[in-house]
Amino acid sequence: MQNEAYKLLDSIEFPQDLRRLPAEQLPQVCRELREFLIKALSDNPGHFASSLGAVELTVALHYVFNTPEDRIVWDVGHQAYGHKILTGRRKVFDTNRHMGGLKPFPSPEESEYDTNTCGHASNSISIALGMAVAAEQQHIKRHVVAVIGDGSMSGGLAFEGLNNASTTPNNLLIILNDNNMSIDTAVGGMKQYLHNLHTSPFYNSLRNTAAMKLGAWGWMDDKRRRSILRFNNSVKSLLLGQRNIFEGLDIRYFGPEDGHDVVRLVETLQRIKDMKGPRLLHINTVKGKGYEPAEKNPTVFHAPGRFIPETGERIKTASEGLPPRFQDVFGETLLELAKEDPRIYGITPAMPTGCSMNILMKEMPERAFDVGIAEGHAVTFAAGMAKDGLIPFCNIYSSFAQRAYDNIIHDVAISHLHVVMCLDRAGLVGEDGATHHGAFDMAALRPIPGLTICSPLDEEDLREMMRTGAFGQDGPFIIRYPRGRRQQYGTAPHPAGPKEIGRGRCLKEGGDVAVLTLGPIGYTALEAAEGTTAAVYDLRYLKPLDEKLLEDIAKRFKRIVTVEDGTRTGGMGSAVMEWINDHGYDIPITRLGLPDNFVEHGTPKELYHIVGLDKENIKKAII
Amino acid sequence: MQNEAYKLLDSIEFPQDLRRLPAEQLPQVCRELREFLIKALSDNPGHFASSLGAVELTVALHYVFNTPEDRIVWDVGHQAYGHKILTGRRKVFDTNRHMGGLKPFPSPEESEYDTNTCGHASNSISIALGMAVAAEQQHIKRHVVAVIGDGSMSGGLAFEGLNNASTTPNNLLIILNDNNMSIDTAVGGMKQYLHNLHTSPFYNSLRNTAAMKLGAWGWMDDKRRRSILRFNNSVKSLLLGQRNIFEGLDIRYFGPEDGHDVVRLVETLQRIKDMKGPRLLHINTVKGKGYEPAEKNPTVFHAPGRFIPETGERIKTASEGLPPRFQDVFGETLLELAKEDPRIYGITPAMPTGCSMNILMKEMPERAFDVGIAEGHAVTFAAGMAKDGLIPFCNIYSSFAQRAYDNIIHDVAISHLHVVMCLDRAGLVGEDGATHHGAFDMAALRPIPGLTICSPLDEEDLREMMRTGAFGQDGPFIIRYPRGRRQQYGTAPHPAGPKEIGRGRCLKEGGDVAVLTLGPIGYTALEAAEGTTAAVYDLRYLKPLDEKLLEDIAKRFKRIVTVEDGTRTGGMGSAVMEWINDHGYDIPITRLGLPDNFVEHGTPKELYHIVGLDKENIKKAII
Repeated sequence: MQNEAYKLLDSIEFPQDLRRLPAEQLPQVCRELREFLIKALSDNPGHFASSLGAVELTVALHYVFNTPEDRIVWDVGHQAYGHKILTGRRKVFDTNRHMGGLKPFPSPEESEYDTNTCGHASNSISIALGMAVAAEQQHIKRHVVAVIGDGSMSGGLAFEGLNNASTTPNNLLIILNDNNMSIDTAVGGMKQYLHNLHTSPFYNSLRNTAAMKLGAWGWMDDKRRRSILRFNNSVKSLLLGQRNIFEGLDIRYFGPEDGHDVVRLVETLQRIKDMKGPRLLHINTVKGKGYEPAEKNPTVFHAPGRFIPETGERIKTASEGLPPRFQDVFGETLLELAKEDPRIYGITPAMPTGCSMNILMKEMPERAFDVGIAEGHAVTFAAGMAKDGLIPFCNIYSSFAQRAYDNIIHDVAISHLHVVMCLDRAGLVGEDGATHHGAFDMAALRPIPGLTICSPLDEEDLREMMRTGAFGQDGPFIIRYPRGRRQQYGTAPHPAGPKEIGRGRCLKEGGDVAVLTLGPIGYTALEAAEGTTAAVYDLRYLKPLDEKLLEDIAKRFKRIVTVEDGTRTGGMGSAVMEWINDHGYDIPITRLGLPDNFVEHGTPKELYHIVGLDKENIKKAII
Repeated sequence: MQNEAYKLLDSIEFPQDLRRLPAEQLPQVCRELREFLIKALSDNPGHFASSLGAVELTVALHYVFNTPEDRIVWDVGHQAYGHKILTGRRKVFDTNRHMGGLKPFPSPEESEYDTNTCGHASNSISIALGMAVAAEQQHIKRHVVAVIGDGSMSGGLAFEGLNNASTTPNNLLIILNDNNMSIDTAVGGMKQYLHNLHTSPFYNSLRNTAAMKLGAWGWMDDKRRRSILRFNNSVKSLLLGQRNIFEGLDIRYFGPEDGHDVVRLVETLQRIKDMKGPRLLHINTVKGKGYEPAEKNPTVFHAPGRFIPETGERIKTASEGLPPRFQDVFGETLLELAKEDPRIYGITPAMPTGCSMNILMKEMPERAFDVGIAEGHAVTFAAGMAKDGLIPFCNIYSSFAQRAYDNIIHDVAISHLHVVMCLDRAGLVGEDGATHHGAFDMAALRPIPGLTICSPLDEEDLREMMRTGAFGQDGPFIIRYPRGRRQQYGTAPHPAGPKEIGRGRCLKEGGDVAVLTLGPIGYTALEAAEGTTAAVYDLRYLKPLDEKLLEDIAKRFKRIVTVEDGTRTGGMGSAVMEWINDHGYDIPITRLGLPDNFVEHGTPKELYHIVGLDKENIKKAII
C-alpha cells in the first residue's frame, strides 16, 4: 500500500471543487478517496466495505449532479462515508461515530448534502419520490437520485416505492448499487434475478454499442430510445429466460454497468440525467473494492473494527474473561434447542451474522431461514410456521422490529401463535446512534394483548427464557436483550431466575427503597445499590408482571425506583406505576429510563451516563 | 331476480358435501351461492362485492382441495363470505358481524377452515409460505394455497413474501384474484402491469392449447413444462413489450384465466395442484359479479349497507340532523386548506372513499395521491414531500397505521418533518372487529420523541386541529378521530378549542372529581357527569400534555378519572399518571379505557358498553 499524499483530495472540500476537475482526473480522486477511507477506518472503526464499494459512484454522482441543490438520497448510510468526505467533512472525519462528532449515518441535521435519515434500509425510493414530486409540483428544476443497494431491494418498502414511482408523474433516477450483498450475502428471488441480469455480456455489449452509435448520430431521441429499450429488453428476456422487473413496472432500465469505472459512470449519468420519467440505472460493484482483505471477506469487513491497513489483520479487543455476548448465547442456545426438538426453527431478516444465527445455519442449514431485509415478512412467515406446528425463533434487532409492529399484532398476537421473538440490540446500541437504539420496544409492545415479554439479567437467564419460550408455553413470547455483553459485576452470572412465566426475583435484600429493574441493566443497579440499604429486584417479565412480588414490595417499601434501558414514557416504570395505582397503593415512584428525545451516538458508557442510567445516577436516585 | 330454492346449496354443509357433486353441477352451486349472498347481505350488511366476485373461485378451491387438511389462506376476509357459507356456517350466517355471532373476517378461532387472521391486506403469501414450509419440513403431504387480490399485491409485505417464496423450497400455490380493484380502484405500476398481462388473447390461447395438448400426450413433465413456460413467457414479453414479474422471481406463472368459469377453474387447479415449486395462477374476476348494481359501482358495493335486492337501491340510514361524519369534515377541510395554500397535499393508501379524500381528488386531482395499499410508503413518501417544502396530509386508518410505525419513527420523527397524519377509525370501529379497532395508536405513538398528538372533541375542533397542524407548527403532527360521527349530546358542537398546541380546556366545572378525556368520547363523559359535581376536562393534546391545566387539576381535585377510547395500558391515562407522579402529587387515578384483550365485533354501542366506556360505567367510576 503506497502512502502517497492526497494531491487531488486536498483540493476538494465541497463538491463544487470536485466539479472543477477534468473527468480524466476522477480515477485519481477515487484512488485517493479509497486510500483515505482505508487509513481512516483502520484507525477509527465504522462501516467499511460498503463505502469502499461506492467510491466511484459517489464521485460520479457529485461530479454530475449539482449537489446539494440536486438531491442524493442514500439508502442506509453504510455506503455514504465517501459522500461525507466530499461534502465538507473530511477534516473532522476522525470524529466519525464519536460522541459529539460526525453522525454514524447521513443526517439532514448535520449537512445540507444529507437529504434524509438513513439508518434503516429500503426507504430511499419512497423519500426520493416524495422529493421528486415536490420539485415537479413547485416547478423546481432539480434532479433527485435515490441510491439503493440490492440488499435493500428485498424490503417491501422499496417495492411499494417502485410501484408508486411507476405511475406518479416524476423524473426520479434510481441507482441500484448491486454488490450481491446486504450485510451478509443477499437472499431471495430478487438477488437471483439481478444476478441473471448481469450475465449476458454479449447482449449488453451489443445493446450499448447500438445505443451509443444511434445517440452519436442524433437518431436517438427520448421516445425512440424508449421503444428501442423495450425491444432490447424483450430480446434480453428471450436470451436469458428472464424478464426485467423494472421495465415491467414501466420504469426505464439502464445497465448493468461497471460501478468501478468512474469515467464511464460519469458519461452514463450525463446521458440519462435529463431524461423524463422514472429511470433505474443498475451498476455492479464489489463490496470492499480496492482492499483485498475486504473483497475476500466482505461480511467481516462490513464493520470490521480497527485493523492494520497494510495487512488487513483485525485488532481484536481482548475478550478473555469477559462474559459471552448475548447474541452468541442466543445462537448457541438456538442450536441446542434445535437439536433437542425438531419443531425449532430460526428466522432472521438478513442478520445471520449479527444475531449469531449463523451458528445454527452452519450446523443445521435446513433449520434456519434468512429471509432478506424483510422484517414484516419474517414475523408473518413465522406466524404461518407456528400455525402448522413448528416453533420458530424470529430474531430481529429491536429498532428494526418497529417495522414488524403490525405483523406482531395482526398476524401473531390476535391468533395467539407460538412465535418466539428475540429482540437483539435492545436499549442503547452505542455508535450506531439514534436510528439504531432499541428504545421503544417495551412501550410499544406492552399494550398488545396476549404477549409475554421478558428480558434476561444475564446469559444464564437468556438460556432459561429461550427454553421457557419454546417449551414452557404456547403463545407469542418476546425476549429482549442488548448488544454485546452484560455489565461485569461480580465474578459469575447469577444462577438463572425462576422457570415460571411472570416471576421476578430479589437480587439484593434491603429496606426503605426498592429498586426494580428489568434486563442486564440490573447489574448496574446492583452496583449502584452497593453500600446502601436499598433492595434490588429483577422483574424478569414486563408482561405479565409478577403481581405477588409487586404486592410484597408495595407493602414493605416506602419508595420505588425503576430502572430500565428503554423509554421512560410508557415503559416498564409506567407498568409498575399502573399496577401500584390500580391496586390502591400509594408509593412515590422514581422512574429512570431513556428520555423523551432521540439519543444520539457515542460509546454505550458515555450514553448511559448522559441519560442518567449509569451507576452514579442510579445511586443518586436511590439516595 | 328469481327466488329459486337452494336445491344444491341445501345439501352442502361442509366442503366434503360439495366434493361429492359432479363438476357439471358446480355452476348451479355458484348460482345458488351468489343468490344466497345477495339475499343475506341486502338484509344484514357486510362486505359484499368482493365475495360476489370470488364465488366461482371459492367453490373451485373447496372442490379441488381437501380442506381443511389442505390450507386456503385468504388475503383480507372481504372475499371470504362464500368460504364461510360452504364451511359449516350458512345456518348462522345471519349472525355475521353481530356481537357474539360470526366474525367479520375469517378467524382460526371460529373455524378450522379459517387458517389465518385476515383483516389487514397483503399477509397471505407470507403466512402460506410459512405453512408450506411447515408441511415440507414435517413431511406432511398437504397443499397450501394463498388467495390474494391485485389490490393487496401493492403492499410491500406481499412482495417480501413473493421474494422469499421464490428461493425457499416450497410447493406453495398463489392465486392472484385480479379484479382491478382493491376497495377503490387499484393503483400503481403493478396494476397496469397486470392489466397488460391480460390483453393478449391470441398469445394466451396459443399457449394454453399447446400446454394442454402436450399434457394430454404425456409429453409434459414438470421439467419440460417449466422450460416451455419460460420460453412462452419470453415470447409473450416480446409480443407485449412486457415482462412477467412472477417468472422473473422464478415463480411459475399460469393464466390469466376467467375466474367466473368454475368448471374450467376446477380443471386448471387439478392440473397444477400437484406440481412442485411455487406457482401463481392469475385469474380475472369482476368485483360484484352477477349483481348488476354492484358490477356497475363496485366501490359503493364494497360494503353497501342494507339494500333492496331486486333493485340495488341502498337503504339509507337517516342522517338528517346528525352531526357530520368526521371523515367528511376531514375531506372538506383538506380541500379548503389546499385551496388556501399550494403546499397542502393529500396522501392515502388506497382509502380515498373511506377517508373522504375523494373530495379533494375530485376537485384538485393533482393535489392528492392514492399510493395503493402501502401504508409504510405513504408515510415515507410524505416525508420526502415535507423535506422539500410541501405540507402533506397523510390519512391512514389507525389500525393500518400500525404498518407505518417505523416509518413514523425513522423517516418522519427523527428528521422532525412537517407531516400531518390523520388517523381515522381510531377507537372501537364496531362490526369490523378485532383487526380493525384503533386501540394502540396512543400508547404506541406517545413514546416517540417530537410528535405532537391530538384528538378533536368534535367537528369544529377537527377543523381547528387540521389548521394548526398545517400552519401553526412545522413538525410531525398526528390527529386521531373515530369512525362515523361524534356522540350527540347537546344540540350544537362546542366551539373549537384553543388554537395553542398542547392546550386543553374545561368542558364542565366541578369539584372533588376531575374527569379527563381526549377526543369525542368527551361527550359521553359529559353526559355521565351530568347531575354530579364532577368537572370534565378535554385534554385535546396527548402530547404535549397541558401541564398548566394538569397542575391546576392536581391542586384542586381529590380524585382523577381518565376516559379514553384506546388501550388503558400505556395510554392517555398513563400519561396523566406519569405526570402526576413525576411532579410529586399524590392523587388516586381511575383509568378507563380499552382492556388488555382484543375486543371483538359488535355495534359501537354494544362494545363501548362491554368495555365500560358508556355513560353508565363512566358515571359509576365518577361516583
